[in-house]
Amino acid sequence: MKRAFNFSAGPAVLPERVLLQVQKELLNYGGTGISILEMSHRSKTFDQIINDAEGLLRRIYQIPENYKVLFLQGGATGMFAALPLNLAHTGAADYVISGHFAGNAFKEGKKYLRDARIAASTEGEAFARVPKQKELKLNPKADYVHICDNNTIFGTRFHYIPDTGAVPLISDMSSNILSMPVDISKYGVIYAGAQKNLAPAGLTIVIIREDLLTDADIHTPDVWNFRKQAEKNSMLNTPATFPVYICKLVLEWIESIGGLTEIQRRNEEKAKILYDCLDASDFYQTAAAKEDRSIMNVCFRTGSEAMDTKFVEDALKHDLVGLKGHRLVGGMRASIYNAMPVEGVLKLAEYMKAFERGNR
Amino acid sequence: MKRAFNFSAGPAVLPERVLLQVQKELLNYGGTGISILEMSHRSKTFDQIINDAEGLLRRIYQIPENYKVLFLQGGATGMFAALPLNLAHTGAADYVISGHFAGNAFKEGKKYLRDARIAASTEGEAFARVPKQKELKLNPKADYVHICDNNTIFGTRFHYIPDTGAVPLISDMSSNILSMPVDISKYGVIYAGAQKNLAPAGLTIVIIREDLLTDADIHTPDVWNFRKQAEKNSMLNTPATFPVYICKLVLEWIESIGGLTEIQRRNEEKAKILYDCLDASDFYQTAAAKEDRSIMNVCFRTGSEAMDTKFVEDALKHDLVGLKGHRLVGGMRASIYNAMPVEGVLKLAEYMKAFERGNR
Repeated sequence: MKRAFNFSAGPAVLPERVLLQVQKELLNYGGTGISILEMSHRSKTFDQIINDAEGLLRRIYQIPENYKVLFLQGGATGMFAALPLNLAHTGAADYVISGHFAGNAFKEGKKYLRDARIAASTEGEAFARVPKQKELKLNPKADYVHICDNNTIFGTRFHYIPDTGAVPLISDMSSNILSMPVDISKYGVIYAGAQKNLAPAGLTIVIIREDLLTDADIHTPDVWNFRKQAEKNSMLNTPATFPVYICKLVLEWIESIGGLTEIQRRNEEKAKILYDCLDASDFYQTAAAKEDRSIMNVCFRTGSEAMDTKFVEDALKHDLVGLKGHRLVGGMRASIYNAMPVEGVLKLAEYMKAFERGNR
Repeated sequence: MKRAFNFSAGPAVLPERVLLQVQKELLNYGGTGISILEMSHRSKTFDQIINDAEGLLRRIYQIPENYKVLFLQGGATGMFAALPLNLAHTGAADYVISGHFAGNAFKEGKKYLRDARIAASTEGEAFARVPKQKELKLNPKADYVHICDNNTIFGTRFHYIPDTGAVPLISDMSSNILSMPVDISKYGVIYAGAQKNLAPAGLTIVIIREDLLTDADIHTPDVWNFRKQAEKNSMLNTPATFPVYICKLVLEWIESIGGLTEIQRRNEEKAKILYDCLDASDFYQTAAAKEDRSIMNVCFRTGSEAMDTKFVEDALKHDLVGLKGHRLVGGMRASIYNAMPVEGVLKLAEYMKAFERGNR
């Protein structure tokens, strides 16, 4: 059976081993006689699955004891509303605008905030880099500072953890969660739509420091009330059971190959292959500032829209799919999340070189 | 491979044919070389899937032209908040309390409503029946009247469509959507968590009359803004792609067996088998009023908690799973959704009789 290399930005590639296991046990999970797709979230079997998923996540990510893990629905876009509702007690918050979704978080957050401020923005530079620490104009009275750790559309990421003093730092890690070890204790909240590095679409992970689980705004929907969901072990309502199960399998895969140290080594190796290829060429350009380059999303273009289209279409013939850049910026984007094997990246690099030879 | 009969209230049984198809094409959907689990929601392939799902739903349910179909996240519990945010322009709404989730809808709705009223309640009768038309105290100035069509926990349902005059009727059909033909035009909104009759957990269907897609409250989260989602074909953010795909397969299955007329015939046949069994016995009792009985959830008990526990545990030995009643009411509950084959119900009825003989 033909399997392509899938460079989609999300939903995205999953480890083949995980897919094979899902396939194998799809009609009868663990001898229960029913599919995981049919299983009650109140069953002992699912309870074990969600607890295992949390335990694995805690171990692999070294999440400190004083953090809770929530498995919610609604995606990062849902959380853009949920975060101010849960955390903005004074109604003041700072947003660092380093890309499209960081901007969306700000726009959505403003609905619920009395004093939403832009701490820094690189929009004027077409988001080719992320703001530096010294550029951040932080409000010491803010309830939180929000960043988007990896900018999927522009191929940049924070290579440092912003120092926000006593103000909790909230990071949208949708496109780079678990791509490397992280000092969780530097963050108040880390959250992520799971559809890039962890699971199929429909699951949202929230890792939150316990002292931030205070009274939410009275207008917070129950399903997004972090404290209530923490008290109910993420089962205030029916959770997205299947993505939680896949998340557990993906975490088992991460642990089996050596955890985040090995994941980071692989991700850096993969990114280097592509950036080396781009840096050695004058046929391709990449807008992302060198020091801010993402190791998850590598964005590039040829300078000609027609040529970009040809690149993406010809790639399909080589079983390289999902290479079209985001509609806001055009060009190409290779998303090389955890589950993308190095073989896929090597094949893409070879294709890039061959395409350049054939089309320059 | 052993497959059990799964009577879980939700997530719940799916057609075996659907599970087999999912299993077969799990690593390579439609020759794309990638799994449906990995597929971009912006791909042409997924676009076809979500459009097909909507088309099938419209055809099977005979949804009038002036209704939109949305594929959202958050479950019915999420919609309990989203509905007043989208629809309560004057801040007045009526709720008919016929069970636990109907009550939850009211409690959550009150957060956003200036004038939330209980139009009728059967809580004083332990929800053994649903309120009758003549009992409804309706506010003609309400923005909507909310009902829960089928009460999963208490095994009752509305056998009539409440006449609410010019006020839009909103129905939570989470546990009986597509269980029979329905005159959609009598409703302003029909919505449902999909994890009982349509798909695995994580998908919420909203069928809404177009004239109700007006300006939502400014505090409505974008992902739950019905008009914005309608304008974006449910892709304002990443939808729960896999459940949408399964929903499409389930709808194809419904159509292939003869649509909702045949589904209703089967559901009534299955329910009759169990109710006949209960009515013929003085060992089992069912609290649900005869005229309000659900054809989706059949609730019963023996009168002894210890005996109920034994019933549920012994059933497992016969590969009959998920029969434990909801924790709020105890006893037993057989959820016999669309995908439960009549063979499963016959086997349960045989088991009930044998259990009675062995334990009375």
